[in-house]
Amino acid sequence: MTTLNIGKHRFTSRLLVGTGKYRDFEQTRAAIDASGAEVVTVAIRRTNIGQDPGAPSLLDFLPPSQFTLLPNTAGCYTADDAIRTLRLARELLSTDSHDHTLVKLEVLGDPHTLYPNMAETIEAAKVLVKEGFEVMVYCSDDPIAAKTLEEIGCVAVMPLASLIGSGMGILNPWNLQLILDKAKVPVIVDAGVGTASDAAIAMELGCDGVLMNTAIAAAKDPVLMASAMRKGVEAGREAFLAGRMPRKLYSATPSSPTGGLITPSR
Amino acid sequence: MTTLNIGKHRFTSRLLVGTGKYRDFEQTRAAIDASGAEVVTVAIRRTNIGQDPGAPSLLDFLPPSQFTLLPNTAGCYTADDAIRTLRLARELLSTDSHDHTLVKLEVLGDPHTLYPNMAETIEAAKVLVKEGFEVMVYCSDDPIAAKTLEEIGCVAVMPLASLIGSGMGILNPWNLQLILDKAKVPVIVDAGVGTASDAAIAMELGCDGVLMNTAIAAAKDPVLMASAMRKGVEAGREAFLAGRMPRKLYSATPSSPTGGLITPSR
Amino acid sequence: MTTLNIGKHRFTSRLLVGTGKYRDFEQTRAAIDASGAEVVTVAIRRTNIGQDPGAPSLLDFLPPSQFTLLPNTAGCYTADDAIRTLRLARELLSTDSHDHTLVKLEVLGDPHTLYPNMAETIEAAKVLVKEGFEVMVYCSDDPIAAKTLEEIGCVAVMPLASLIGSGMGILNPWNLQLILDKAKVPVIVDAGVGTASDAAIAMELGCDGVLMNTAIAAAKDPVLMASAMRKGVEAGREAFLAGRMPRKLYSATPSSPTGGLITPSR
Amino acid sequence: MTTLNIGKHRFTSRLLVGTGKYRDFEQTRAAIDASGAEVVTVAIRRTNIGQDPGAPSLLDFLPPSQFTLLPNTAGCYTADDAIRTLRLARELLSTDSHDHTLVKLEVLGDPHTLYPNMAETIEAAKVLVKEGFEVMVYCSDDPIAAKTLEEIGCVAVMPLASLIGSGMGILNPWNLQLILDKAKVPVIVDAGVGTASDAAIAMELGCDGVLMNTAIAAAKDPVLMASAMRKGVEAGREAFLAGRMPRKLYSATPSSPTGGLITPSR
Repeated sequence: MTTLNIGKHRFTSRLLVGTGKYRDFEQTRAAIDASGAEVVTVAIRRTNIGQDPGAPSLLDFLPPSQFTLLPNTAGCYTADDAIRTLRLARELLSTDSHDHTLVKLEVLGDPHTLYPNMAETIEAAKVLVKEGFEVMVYCSDDPIAAKTLEEIGCVAVMPLASLIGSGMGILNPWNLQLILDKAKVPVIVDAGVGTASDAAIAMELGCDGVLMNTAIAAAKDPVLMASAMRKGVEAGREAFLAGRMPRKLYSATPSSPTGGLITPSR
Repeated sequence: MTTLNIGKHRFTSRLLVGTGKYRDFEQTRAAIDASGAEVVTVAIRRTNIGQDPGAPSLLDFLPPSQFTLLPNTAGCYTADDAIRTLRLARELLSTDSHDHTLVKLEVLGDPHTLYPNMAETIEAAKVLVKEGFEVMVYCSDDPIAAKTLEEIGCVAVMPLASLIGSGMGILNPWNLQLILDKAKVPVIVDAGVGTASDAAIAMELGCDGVLMNTAIAAAKDPVLMASAMRKGVEAGREAFLAGRMPRKLYSATPSSPTGGLITPSR
Repeated sequence: MTTLNIGKHRFTSRLLVGTGKYRDFEQTRAAIDASGAEVVTVAIRRTNIGQDPGAPSLLDFLPPSQFTLLPNTAGCYTADDAIRTLRLARELLSTDSHDHTLVKLEVLGDPHTLYPNMAETIEAAKVLVKEGFEVMVYCSDDPIAAKTLEEIGCVAVMPLASLIGSGMGILNPWNLQLILDKAKVPVIVDAGVGTASDAAIAMELGCDGVLMNTAIAAAKDPVLMASAMRKGVEAGREAFLAGRMPRKLYSATPSSPTGGLITPSR
Repeated sequence: MTTLNIGKHRFTSRLLVGTGKYRDFEQTRAAIDASGAEVVTVAIRRTNIGQDPGAPSLLDFLPPSQFTLLPNTAGCYTADDAIRTLRLARELLSTDSHDHTLVKLEVLGDPHTLYPNMAETIEAAKVLVKEGFEVMVYCSDDPIAAKTLEEIGCVAVMPLASLIGSGMGILNPWNLQLILDKAKVPVIVDAGVGTASDAAIAMELGCDGVLMNTAIAAAKDPVLMASAMRKGVEAGREAFLAGRMPRKLYSATPSSPTGGLITPSR
């Protein structure tokens, strides 16, 4: 299996996960372990990773030594807000020896649908790339906008499968296909996956990875669902690489060798 | 994980595989090993399992000590043909200490679509059950016919996802749901699966297992696809047990804790 | 436009309608007028067409001089019940000069799903055809069973789109296609249509007609929905005859003449 | 039936049609007559409406006295090109007494997919609205971008069903629904309709109209398909207004009155 290469980073797992909506940090950690994820995204505006020194920090449960933390801008509705949020995240996660530039940009259009605002997203991406961020970018499934984001210098484009938190699966695989046909950076489906087969379908289309949160955290048994998702992503990836059989309504040929050996005595 | 219980048999794997369409018996074995399947179905009218003592036998590559062989009636278009074929199979596979009664019945309607002939299938099932066979039965997705087959005494009902060898996936999940709602015996999707996500979807619906052949054998890399299918079935099963999140077009709630901690300084 | 030929009958309209679930007989008549239907099906076990001489009769509102009445066996779960019901209907609808033989046979599998019991349906069809009935037969979308019913001598096969009263539309167009590929008698989609586009899709597949009841009667405005259905059926029929454009994910050709005349001055 | 109100214009027909890809202007006119369309869109960069005084003009066949001509910017890939094209169109179609401001803006992203470039589209829309154009705007199915276009002052938003000339139908009805939920201007599906049921589905979703070209012009019989489309749009509109029955997998209630009158004597 080839690795997932995002900017200068190399990953074995193609399942990226979020940290919201869990019962507590212990459950968060258990589910993430079951998922096999190496990249873990964190909503900087909603999760303590050091901003509040007195409160429990997610980093105690998901130490940067074990996981690649991916700060995101969930809750931002303008380019400015998103830029500010990621500058803060960079500060919080960088150390003397490590400049934390890998981030996930998302700028939402409204609090009702959480659909991305692509105009603001493009604007923010331009600024962040210039400032040296490695920008993974949440986006609509618009193939022209995805190409624009790649040309700006984003290191991964992350089109939605369906609305954030909806669990509706991949509503428009054709648009994902258009994006995949042109993309030279990794394409990671972000948002909308609801169950393991959704993740498998994304990978079978040729996507390079899948990011999810609610589908795991809001399952009745998040840890078991995390395992299901891990296998779903791997199944889809392997099926993509294995080269599936063609679809055809009829098959006049049975799936056993045609040169029949035997007819039973009558 | 609970076992798959068919009649008096217990299996860990929920993926059942066929043996047709491979390059040779070596590839057949390699793919089956990768699939993790314990039950392997064999088209008695097309495959040598001892009928022709001089020719290579599939049993040399898939010894009954390691696999549960499931003789099937592929190529039979009448109840009579199917019954005769399975009587022959029982003879061939039974030993002094083992009466081989576990079989897969399929009676096809025409050589063009390979759709099952349910009237002949029901007739054959009645006779075979009376003769002490443990009948796993390939059938359409007709919920009334599936119930009839269970009432006759079949040990598993095996509705199609789509036509044999078509790779079209699950064309009518609603009918599968109707069957699942009423069935007391295992429901195993048989025919039509084309790729790993199809297998996952079948399991997420609540099916007890999936049987396939062409989807593995006709992939560009059958051994890798067999691994994909193994993971697809496991992913779907785990997702089913984990209890997926509800689908909803909108989610006004972001997938991160709502009690927002932080707003970046401006 | 060619006529719809069922047995010896010729119809201009390809929309057949039921009479159940309306507010009253006046609304029934208004909706049927708006639908343009010539064939009107009546549940003999539930509707008074003369069995109860004292009660209002549907025939007062839908006189046989204006409509072709099609008695049906809704509510019958065995071949025997259905046969008895249709013999009664024949008696009630025949006159000295008219032997009413055109009927709709349906034998249901259970009161929960109302899915047809195909084994009982086939049995009843055999008897009724022998007795000189012109049998239009409600059936599953099983192409082998549909062919069997045609071979028995039924004058039309009427596969479901989805369950009776469900409004789910055409769940498995591929099976309908298999039936259409082989049928020599009219194929009329019966049950499951929920809205006008469902009816159009059925006709675009090549079906000869559509029968519905709930989709009209349970709309908020049944009379307007009846008009919608009339147009939907006609639209689908015309589109089928007109020969639709091919589907293709990409079209590199814009839909305007390629030899561009003009470029605006810059 | 209510009228379709676009800016200050009122239309009875909700089917808008293009003029490309026909055999000749005679066929164009015959098909448009059969469609009942009142609004006819013209690709200014490809069709002579007076730019070339010596050549036959489309206006001879579709006189502005009988049709509302809607100049469009097919073939434009930048805001500047589109703006220049529509200024030219305004000049060509205006007379002393009539300032022709109603236009269709489309700015494409690439010649391969013909997917809209939303950034350029928004930029062009701003300029055109300021110059007094009544802008109907072709767009992706991005609900945030559609809202932006409305806020700029466009008189109608025209999201794609699928790619121009693809005939793939409505690939993402959920996104159309999101647009419809928020829009205060008419929403007209533009591009991707392939057959009559696609048009009906668009209208059943609540769209205010449908614009198409290839689906009619590239049918085997364009004039008959134009009639089918007219009926499809009307069927969908009426079904939307009539209020369809709810979808439900099961209906335990048959579609005939439950208080059964009669049981046949046995």
